[in-house]
Amino acid sequence: MLSRQIASRLQGLETPFYLYDMELLRQTLESVMSAAKRYNYKVHYAIKANYDPRLLALIRDYGLGIDCASGNELRCAIEAGFDPKTIVYAGVGKRDKELRYAIEQNIFAINCESIEELQVLNRLAAEAGKRVDVALRINPDIDPKTNHCIDTGQADSKFGISYEEVLDHAAELQGLENLHIRGLHLHIGSQIRELHVFENMCLKVNSIVDYLTRLGFAVDFVDVGGGLGINYDVPENEPIPNFASMFAIVHNHLKVGDREVHFEFGRSIVGECGELITQVLFTKTTATGRRLLIVDASMTELIRPALYGSYHNIENITSEEELQSKYTVVGTACESTDVFDENVGLKRTHRGDLLAIKSAGAYGMSMASRYNLHDLPGAVYSDDL
Amino acid sequence: MLSRQIASRLQGLETPFYLYDMELLRQTLESVMSAAKRYNYKVHYAIKANYDPRLLALIRDYGLGIDCASGNELRCAIEAGFDPKTIVYAGVGKRDKELRYAIEQNIFAINCESIEELQVLNRLAAEAGKRVDVALRINPDIDPKTNHCIDTGQADSKFGISYEEVLDHAAELQGLENLHIRGLHLHIGSQIRELHVFENMCLKVNSIVDYLTRLGFAVDFVDVGGGLGINYDVPENEPIPNFASMFAIVHNHLKVGDREVHFEFGRSIVGECGELITQVLFTKTTATGRRLLIVDASMTELIRPALYGSYHNIENITSEEELQSKYTVVGTACESTDVFDENVGLKRTHRGDLLAIKSAGAYGMSMASRYNLHDLPGAVYSDDL
Repeated sequence: MLSRQIASRLQGLETPFYLYDMELLRQTLESVMSAAKRYNYKVHYAIKANYDPRLLALIRDYGLGIDCASGNELRCAIEAGFDPKTIVYAGVGKRDKELRYAIEQNIFAINCESIEELQVLNRLAAEAGKRVDVALRINPDIDPKTNHCIDTGQADSKFGISYEEVLDHAAELQGLENLHIRGLHLHIGSQIRELHVFENMCLKVNSIVDYLTRLGFAVDFVDVGGGLGINYDVPENEPIPNFASMFAIVHNHLKVGDREVHFEFGRSIVGECGELITQVLFTKTTATGRRLLIVDASMTELIRPALYGSYHNIENITSEEELQSKYTVVGTACESTDVFDENVGLKRTHRGDLLAIKSAGAYGMSMASRYNLHDLPGAVYSDDL
Repeated sequence: MLSRQIASRLQGLETPFYLYDMELLRQTLESVMSAAKRYNYKVHYAIKANYDPRLLALIRDYGLGIDCASGNELRCAIEAGFDPKTIVYAGVGKRDKELRYAIEQNIFAINCESIEELQVLNRLAAEAGKRVDVALRINPDIDPKTNHCIDTGQADSKFGISYEEVLDHAAELQGLENLHIRGLHLHIGSQIRELHVFENMCLKVNSIVDYLTRLGFAVDFVDVGGGLGINYDVPENEPIPNFASMFAIVHNHLKVGDREVHFEFGRSIVGECGELITQVLFTKTTATGRRLLIVDASMTELIRPALYGSYHNIENITSEEELQSKYTVVGTACESTDVFDENVGLKRTHRGDLLAIKSAGAYGMSMASRYNLHDLPGAVYSDDL
């Protein structure tokens, strides 16, 4: 990883900070876009993964569009110079002012997640004197052919519209004169590491496209979401996710004719290029004999371990000790849950050492808070070092 | 609750926002301070619960001190006009610059949580040419008399110094010339609703004071932390926590002679005076038949349900329907965990209705994030309505 190679240049910088490997990001973008080009697939960056302006500029330069989840994310994308016609906007709860802004900007599609949202959007589009491009975000977790099999938890999730609601309201939706319902959007989940799952996704998309077509909806494009996982366990083994394999699977199994196919990637684009660099403040041993490293980062900079129990590989990038020990790495926040990992094998560690918390480029900075009035962490870019 | 009484005046305000019942806060402060006065107990407000300047001004006016957990929290307290001599500063990971600032401000005590912190603080105090007042924060979860009984998870926590480390370093600590180790600090936990737990706490404090005294430490004051819980289930039943009962228990069981006794209350001071007011954007029914209310707040304004599975009582404060239904209340964030509660009984609810998420005054706004680039929520004070 980059931080280990340039550790000496990181010493003395104000910690904690996110270190971005811009060359890795370039290679990742090159990889996804060249693989997508083979099949003429459209790629959107899920901007919620990281809003860093330097990252956004690079992502824009490689020709990706944006997938956003709020009016402010849409604004951020537009201000970062993304062409509105490459932006999709999903989200279960869009305020009127957010929908109005999206209508104004003439984006590629507003992905609607409820019948009520479609009704509201139609009214707002009428007020603006426009016909708005829309995709139906369908909750994919029950096959429309086996609608009564409702034993999956996912079918219960807040995302997307159920088949039944689409069926019940099909005629009404087709009569919404200020909407041009032209796409299907679905998203089967996140951090998917077993690529065969995408085969199932394709079968689902095929089936939903067929369903919508039979209901009289003209589907021009399908947005199959994202979900491609990264290797949190051993990031070195796989710094760039295997976009080519995922696309090949989709190409072999998706039967949607000449409809445009869109993907949304967040974590798989920026996850591996970011590391959270933090300094060891104190070490101590608990009454149970556990050795603690207290670092100057916390759940305020990276909440995934506390919120989701997520694993991030941690490395001591400055220790010159030969021997390793096992440590529990904890943050400064006044919360018991503020623990980065337990029983981490690290080179013997002392106050002042720098640790790299890896694969932190996605959902790190974007979920940061100022709890305990912590300052937001800074960013350091490999291009500047 | 306040929001129900004044619902008509809340309509039209930009949602979501925190509504603060300033009169309830006054009554709560009156209650805690008059109860404390009986025993000459010192009360500190745990500022991490809520940094709102209007709340802080009131808390200061009632004569509370501050318990802070970072250098920025300390700065916030000082800027809010709290007398440094009423401020204690705890925290497992204090940066050098934070310790230097605390030394500069001559606060009541720095509560040190590791031997290494004490060593560093001594060095920094020497650099500043000062002798600094310090409390030892002891991890209380094993009785010092039964030190080998290490089967409690808490003894493994990151907070405080273990008895063994104090014992091993007693002579060294007493030789730290720029520290005046004069207090004991401990904290047994949070949201404690069974008051008899505080009886056990007292026995623990008695025992630790005895332990430290035998090791040659002169303990002038004990800071017994906080932990008094609030009634999240039915806040109306108990808008003001029973400080008097807690103090009576402590008075009856704490045997620390004429040492000053300090308390730290966060949640119990501000928890009940705050409600998160949010508007219903859309309703929909999942494939499994679950009725969803999609509100314009999310885990970015109140993360406790997503982070800790915490319960907050929710009420529809504007519906005029007679009948109730069961709903799942979900937020706008693009995360499956962004659910406020499931199967909530509410008056029949429609788009535009206002919901009050109660008991949200503590660890609501202070833990807010800007994930999905959500704007931070505003604050509305009953005094202004």
